[in-house]
Amino acid sequence: MSPTPSLAQLQQPDAFLRRHLGPDAAEQQAMLAVLGLASRAELIEQTVPPGIRLSEPLDLPAALDEEAALAKLRGYAEQNQVWTSLIGMGYHGTFMPTVILRNVLQNPGWYTAYTPYQPEIAQGRLEALLNFQQLTIDLTGLALANASLLDEATAAAEAMALARRVAKSKSNRFFVDQHCHPQTLSVLQTRADAFGFELVIDAVDRLAEHSVFGALLQYPDTHGEIHDLRPLIEQLHAQQALACVSADLLGLLLLTPPGELGADVVLGSAQRFGVPMGYGGPHAAYFACRDEYKRAMPGRIIGVSKDARGNVALRMALQTREQHIRREKANSNICTAQVLLANIASCYAVYHGPQGLQRIAQRVQRLTAILAAGLARHGMARVNQHFFDTLTLEVGGSQTAIIDSAQAARINLRILGRGRLGVSLDETCTAATVEQLFAVFLGADHGLSVAELDAGELPEGIPLALQRSSGYLSHPVFNSHHSETEMLRYLKQLENKDLALNQSMIPLGSCTMKLNASSEMIPITWPQFANLHPFVPVEQAQGYRLMIDELQAWLCAITGFDAICMQPNSGAQGEYAGLLAIGKYHHSRGDSQRRICLIPASAHGTNPASAQMAGMQVQIVECDAQGNVDLDDLKRHALAAGEQLACLMITYPSTHGVYEESIRDICAVIHAHGGQVYMDGANLNAQVGLTRPADIGADVAHLNLHKTFCIPHGGGGPGMGPIGVRAHLAAFVANHPVITLDGPEPHNTAVSAAPWGSASILPISWMYIAMLGPQLREASEVAILAANYLAQQLQGAFPLLYSGRNGRVAHECILDLRPLKTQTGISEEDVAKRLMDYGFHAPTMSFPVPGTLMLEPTESESKQELDRFIEAMLSIRAEIAKVANGDWPADDNPLKRAPHTLADVIGVWQRPYSLEEALTPCAHARAHKYWPTVNRVDNVYGDRNLHCACVPVADYRS
Amino acid sequence: MSPTPSLAQLQQPDAFLRRHLGPDAAEQQAMLAVLGLASRAELIEQTVPPGIRLSEPLDLPAALDEEAALAKLRGYAEQNQVWTSLIGMGYHGTFMPTVILRNVLQNPGWYTAYTPYQPEIAQGRLEALLNFQQLTIDLTGLALANASLLDEATAAAEAMALARRVAKSKSNRFFVDQHCHPQTLSVLQTRADAFGFELVIDAVDRLAEHSVFGALLQYPDTHGEIHDLRPLIEQLHAQQALACVSADLLGLLLLTPPGELGADVVLGSAQRFGVPMGYGGPHAAYFACRDEYKRAMPGRIIGVSKDARGNVALRMALQTREQHIRREKANSNICTAQVLLANIASCYAVYHGPQGLQRIAQRVQRLTAILAAGLARHGMARVNQHFFDTLTLEVGGSQTAIIDSAQAARINLRILGRGRLGVSLDETCTAATVEQLFAVFLGADHGLSVAELDAGELPEGIPLALQRSSGYLSHPVFNSHHSETEMLRYLKQLENKDLALNQSMIPLGSCTMKLNASSEMIPITWPQFANLHPFVPVEQAQGYRLMIDELQAWLCAITGFDAICMQPNSGAQGEYAGLLAIGKYHHSRGDSQRRICLIPASAHGTNPASAQMAGMQVQIVECDAQGNVDLDDLKRHALAAGEQLACLMITYPSTHGVYEESIRDICAVIHAHGGQVYMDGANLNAQVGLTRPADIGADVAHLNLHKTFCIPHGGGGPGMGPIGVRAHLAAFVANHPVITLDGPEPHNTAVSAAPWGSASILPISWMYIAMLGPQLREASEVAILAANYLAQQLQGAFPLLYSGRNGRVAHECILDLRPLKTQTGISEEDVAKRLMDYGFHAPTMSFPVPGTLMLEPTESESKQELDRFIEAMLSIRAEIAKVANGDWPADDNPLKRAPHTLADVIGVWQRPYSLEEALTPCAHARAHKYWPTVNRVDNVYGDRNLHCACVPVADYRS
Repeated sequence: MSPTPSLAQLQQPDAFLRRHLGPDAAEQQAMLAVLGLASRAELIEQTVPPGIRLSEPLDLPAALDEEAALAKLRGYAEQNQVWTSLIGMGYHGTFMPTVILRNVLQNPGWYTAYTPYQPEIAQGRLEALLNFQQLTIDLTGLALANASLLDEATAAAEAMALARRVAKSKSNRFFVDQHCHPQTLSVLQTRADAFGFELVIDAVDRLAEHSVFGALLQYPDTHGEIHDLRPLIEQLHAQQALACVSADLLGLLLLTPPGELGADVVLGSAQRFGVPMGYGGPHAAYFACRDEYKRAMPGRIIGVSKDARGNVALRMALQTREQHIRREKANSNICTAQVLLANIASCYAVYHGPQGLQRIAQRVQRLTAILAAGLARHGMARVNQHFFDTLTLEVGGSQTAIIDSAQAARINLRILGRGRLGVSLDETCTAATVEQLFAVFLGADHGLSVAELDAGELPEGIPLALQRSSGYLSHPVFNSHHSETEMLRYLKQLENKDLALNQSMIPLGSCTMKLNASSEMIPITWPQFANLHPFVPVEQAQGYRLMIDELQAWLCAITGFDAICMQPNSGAQGEYAGLLAIGKYHHSRGDSQRRICLIPASAHGTNPASAQMAGMQVQIVECDAQGNVDLDDLKRHALAAGEQLACLMITYPSTHGVYEESIRDICAVIHAHGGQVYMDGANLNAQVGLTRPADIGADVAHLNLHKTFCIPHGGGGPGMGPIGVRAHLAAFVANHPVITLDGPEPHNTAVSAAPWGSASILPISWMYIAMLGPQLREASEVAILAANYLAQQLQGAFPLLYSGRNGRVAHECILDLRPLKTQTGISEEDVAKRLMDYGFHAPTMSFPVPGTLMLEPTESESKQELDRFIEAMLSIRAEIAKVANGDWPADDNPLKRAPHTLADVIGVWQRPYSLEEALTPCAHARAHKYWPTVNRVDNVYGDRNLHCACVPVADYRS
Repeated sequence: MSPTPSLAQLQQPDAFLRRHLGPDAAEQQAMLAVLGLASRAELIEQTVPPGIRLSEPLDLPAALDEEAALAKLRGYAEQNQVWTSLIGMGYHGTFMPTVILRNVLQNPGWYTAYTPYQPEIAQGRLEALLNFQQLTIDLTGLALANASLLDEATAAAEAMALARRVAKSKSNRFFVDQHCHPQTLSVLQTRADAFGFELVIDAVDRLAEHSVFGALLQYPDTHGEIHDLRPLIEQLHAQQALACVSADLLGLLLLTPPGELGADVVLGSAQRFGVPMGYGGPHAAYFACRDEYKRAMPGRIIGVSKDARGNVALRMALQTREQHIRREKANSNICTAQVLLANIASCYAVYHGPQGLQRIAQRVQRLTAILAAGLARHGMARVNQHFFDTLTLEVGGSQTAIIDSAQAARINLRILGRGRLGVSLDETCTAATVEQLFAVFLGADHGLSVAELDAGELPEGIPLALQRSSGYLSHPVFNSHHSETEMLRYLKQLENKDLALNQSMIPLGSCTMKLNASSEMIPITWPQFANLHPFVPVEQAQGYRLMIDELQAWLCAITGFDAICMQPNSGAQGEYAGLLAIGKYHHSRGDSQRRICLIPASAHGTNPASAQMAGMQVQIVECDAQGNVDLDDLKRHALAAGEQLACLMITYPSTHGVYEESIRDICAVIHAHGGQVYMDGANLNAQVGLTRPADIGADVAHLNLHKTFCIPHGGGGPGMGPIGVRAHLAAFVANHPVITLDGPEPHNTAVSAAPWGSASILPISWMYIAMLGPQLREASEVAILAANYLAQQLQGAFPLLYSGRNGRVAHECILDLRPLKTQTGISEEDVAKRLMDYGFHAPTMSFPVPGTLMLEPTESESKQELDRFIEAMLSIRAEIAKVANGDWPADDNPLKRAPHTLADVIGVWQRPYSLEEALTPCAHARAHKYWPTVNRVDNVYGDRNLHCACVPVADYRS
């Protein structure tokens, strides 16, 4: 008889679960013992209110191991057909330099980093983002740029909102060139409807007929035409309206920048700077404006400041704008950016440099001119007189034949009405592409030669008056790293400055920095997912459809909802999309007056901003001393609102990190008054497999796929915020003007540029769910266990601000630093900075309560790492005690001086504590020291002396 | 008229060249100006002797850009068919954990590192290698292991050589189990023939009939049988012969380790520990022996020593063995190892841990038992009574039908004579595989159920007496990193300790540390290249054949040779293979007496060792004061050798870094005396496009694909050392016993286990040549320019040891540190270690001349990086001056104390120089400090206290 265990015993149904979880079974047991518990079940019993507990396992397929899941998804991918897509419309083929592919996009040092709220440990990605801003500034000709927005269409909507914030015109109308991309028009329509703006969509030569507070012009327009914007901008300025321009970033290398033409805002997509089309995203939008609008600018801005030693240090500037200050008066809810994609685009510019970029643009333009000349020689009429990369052609009755011919050549053209076809060339096109197009448009016997046309006279694509004369990208960073070796080292230097999940825990409350597994990441760079244009015929994207349909079904099973809308590209955008659906639902029932949105005081700042943007009136509901919604106050508000009650927005578990016992009652109150419940899904990681938003009473919720479902944070984006809705809301979610989605009403407008948002990162979440299946519940349980373990071990040193039933927390906990600050002057910020010396990223600081730290360890951190963090926090507590008892002066101690850097070491050391105490306060720091590259960054100086472009190299030396 | 340049002007025929080269055109011009030259042509005129200069461009296809080259190679790859290969014979399917794939194999931090000769900046990969040794020790049951050899077959040959070195038996015979893998038998035959050993290939039960100095047994054997080795080993020991065992590493998890059975040497392949089959390689062989043979062990051994502070520090131990000391008496020429692959295997063990590995082995064994039971139930006879993963079956007349059926299922079986078939299961097999196999062997109506068989009684695969009872891998490193997060961080911690090309120049003379471009690396992990068994029918490997044929043709064009043999896996193995061909050639002409091999005194230590191994008698030819071969001495030797002259081995340009003017004369002298010229291709980077080995007079040369042709060094392997030969030698190069190659005589034996050596890394060199084409010449020219620039800028501070015509060097130069040492006590080692504080890897130390540093910057380093290095060297020279003039004591200065570490910072600082001087002697160190993790390593202590296994964790804390 064979002595080995049976095959059945040797199967590993939990193969991936064991990789995803930090603590193994024995370690979990040890953690439970600290809590005085015997099992995870007992913990859940004590933690999750019984009334909402899910009794059944999640209705998901059994977990696949990593290889099986990859093989299954590979099978889907192979059902996508990668054709040459010359559709244009804001999406273009591009080559990501492989040195960037391997060392940024596929490197956890970049993709697992968090948003650079802690600048001392983020100087690398901050520099890459500053490069992105410089790139934007140089190419647009405006003074100020931000560090990316979600996509071109929503950036256009942000421009409209900015125009309304700052324009002196009192008009309520916003003009849009009818030849903007259709998805931009659709998103603008959505946004304008909610704001109550009148959107005027018309031909640009009729601009003068309208009185507006601003306008969006496209340069070149969607049909490829290049208008001289100067007279249009003058008309706008004459009526104190803002001129916003959506521009093609590659085209701007050859075109006079809109800023030089007088534009006030310039925006667009940076996709074609090395970022794959990815069936719609994610890509970074760029956004620039005049300097005087800096405090009105949406999104994040990286600024140059100095550190405690006076050295140059980068940081996110002007944090405290819009949703943070204005909350329910905000008209932007932007939070997540597209950092990883913006950084790929800026690295693409660093890699190619100004001459290289210009050559790429010139090649595209030249190929287009050759194509235009050849077609013209055969008498084919062109709709657009001028062009950069796009031709719109009058093909009349030949349209069908040409389309057939293009399909045979596996080429996608843009199909327009009235016998027109569009073709947009890009970086990946060659003379062979043009020859193929001649054959497609003219038949095999076209008799044209690209070489001969190239040698002859070609049509003037860009009118002389609009040819760019100004230079760009003269900063050394764009002129120094053109050999691959130099580029590789530059990327490594940036990476080495930053702390990401590949080095230590990032225990950020409300952010769920869990494992982003390699097997989850692998499919996103498969060409079959990466290289699809979002508007290809759906039959070319069957693999995407299978994957997305399955993911939607799984997310429905997890949330209890009936339908999922994949379109929103961030949590905040999900909020907005969900509230719009609620608004439309009320409207459909004749309840248009339902406009009041109740929001608990503890809510994230995006909640009221989203509500305001969705045209709702925000009313704040108080919380009690435990951080729970004050049910009586809620009832009062609901009653007072009466038939005007639209909805409640609520986070569950609460932003205070507890499962409110009364959540079902809360939802019932809202429903009783005819309102809908919007659930903010930021904390869904504490629900999966244990309870479900729809079961609790939510009508709609957004899911942060970049939190709960393993899409990495990318250093501050991409995000994905799809929404789940109950059946009665399904008809009211976003649709798309180009690719019509099943489910929502066909005429519904869009919230994002692409039909399924950032489709190319959905494989990450698909893989995660495929590899865990019903075991997702175990992940949630271990996340809760880890948070309670931390709370238990730390609450003796730092008071726990809130707890729920049985003194337990959910998946995160809040430590109150205020008493210590009062006593010693040591603040939560000092603790956060000091943690860097121990090799940790700080927890979330002062959210949701000022003066606190919110910790969320997630299920992926090992007990060893949790213990290391506990040891660090207790050691810091002992350090605070030394300040308290006078061993160290209040203003000269390792906490106030933190973080410590090499500059401290090589300077004169005259402090009341030793270098050893400064640098290696724990064993881990001795063995694996992480060095912050700047001392504490001066926020006030940075905001007072706003500088948001690259720094002269000499300044770094000071 | 279009203002843009024409398409023709916008093409970039040098797209990749500009990425591969460090300095751009302007920087090259500035470097030339320093040399007083106007053009590169002038430099080449002054440098390369006119008589050998190539007048034509290389006959290669025009350069493709990166995307086009990748697309072309992808087309080839798609012509490979990835079937399920159950052929066994030492190659098995395996899963590389994706966290290792992404963070080791695809990460330049690992693959661009050099061999860890400088341990202070290599503690990461040294630790991974130590883990590999521990793994080997634990699984084999022997006391000592090395850090990998080239493949299983050559490891077996090394075992035979070791046996001869240490066995007390005076026999000249070595016994080999006839059921060793055929490629092992073939390589042993090659090696035995050259050594003059008699190889006895026979059944193990006839071992007692032979008097031998050693034997190789296989465990399990190639047909899957598991013999009890004890009685065989006793027979061997009784005659004072060594027992060597080739063992399956996965099998050893379940089998009593050979060391416990009394074996003296155990070896095998670590391929199935996570390394793809890759159509033959590269993979690491493991090698273990008794402690008493440690000074006879081939290859590199990692040992534990201590640093200047007494802390644990790893290093390569016992460097000075074999070819270094014994030179022409050596019987091993091992130099390159398979570090990257050994580290992948050791990381695989760290990732899975002992329980995980055991489960994998048990699953394989259980599936095999189920297969065996099912086949037996249908009466199919099995040849091997016992088994781990392999069954050899008597299928008689059904053989053809079964093979057809297997092909239909895309399964490769092992086809044996006499109506036998073999099948070997592996980690990737599942119950479904076994079901497929039932259908293949028995037809669709087999009526068997895997589940039913699993529940029933199964044959005993491993005899009770040979079931493993001892534990393994109890060290914490194998029991701590099983969550992906922990594994990721462990890999990152190791990577962070090491300096690789992604951080700074590695100016190692004779090693050509040039760019390993991302686009070159990308194809090697495509499944179509990674997942082919080397013995699949050739029609499944058409893509490989196209790629290899083309690469061979290109290498012929570059070298002027008529044929290429791809088989050698390292430069030293290339030497050996080339000398064997020369020997066979002489033999074929009745000149068997030609055994004298002339070697210049300046030769690399592998040259005489290889000659000795090839059965030649080495005679040393003197060099003159300029480092050139003393032509008169050469003539004297050649004349004296007369009809016994076999060949000359010569490196060109010389190991002294100069183009010897008389190279043609040298070759002519040899040819005049009937000898052949073997050219060591280590310095081929200075020849490509400028001259050709065959034109100069070489009959055979090896090409270091890991130097000249961009295969990365991987931290000390893989290498590739194919040889080029002139037509008259083409019949005499290696062939292969399983896959017969075109060209060499069919009966020629092999030098490596796989027909084309490490086939899966050939795409790297293919990509490099495809992307440069005839522009390869420009790379060589810039390499020469860079070396001369360094020489010019540094020779004022450090005397240049040799130079050639016009005072120029070739692609490298030697700085003489001896005068300074005499004067100040500061040695070349002090300078090498001090460079670490500046963030550099040291140049080659004391080769070919003791007391010197040999610098080879390659063409890929930018002028900025060269200048940074020059600045560092001049700064170090100034530091030496401070020692010389007494500013700093001779024994307490930054040079003697280098490198400096964090431990220096946090200790008490009482030195005559400042921390700033210690740590940040240059601007680059201030901005991008690299921290060595240990102080200077104590070599003497390490050799005296040899410890080659993992260190107790507590020791690190001391």
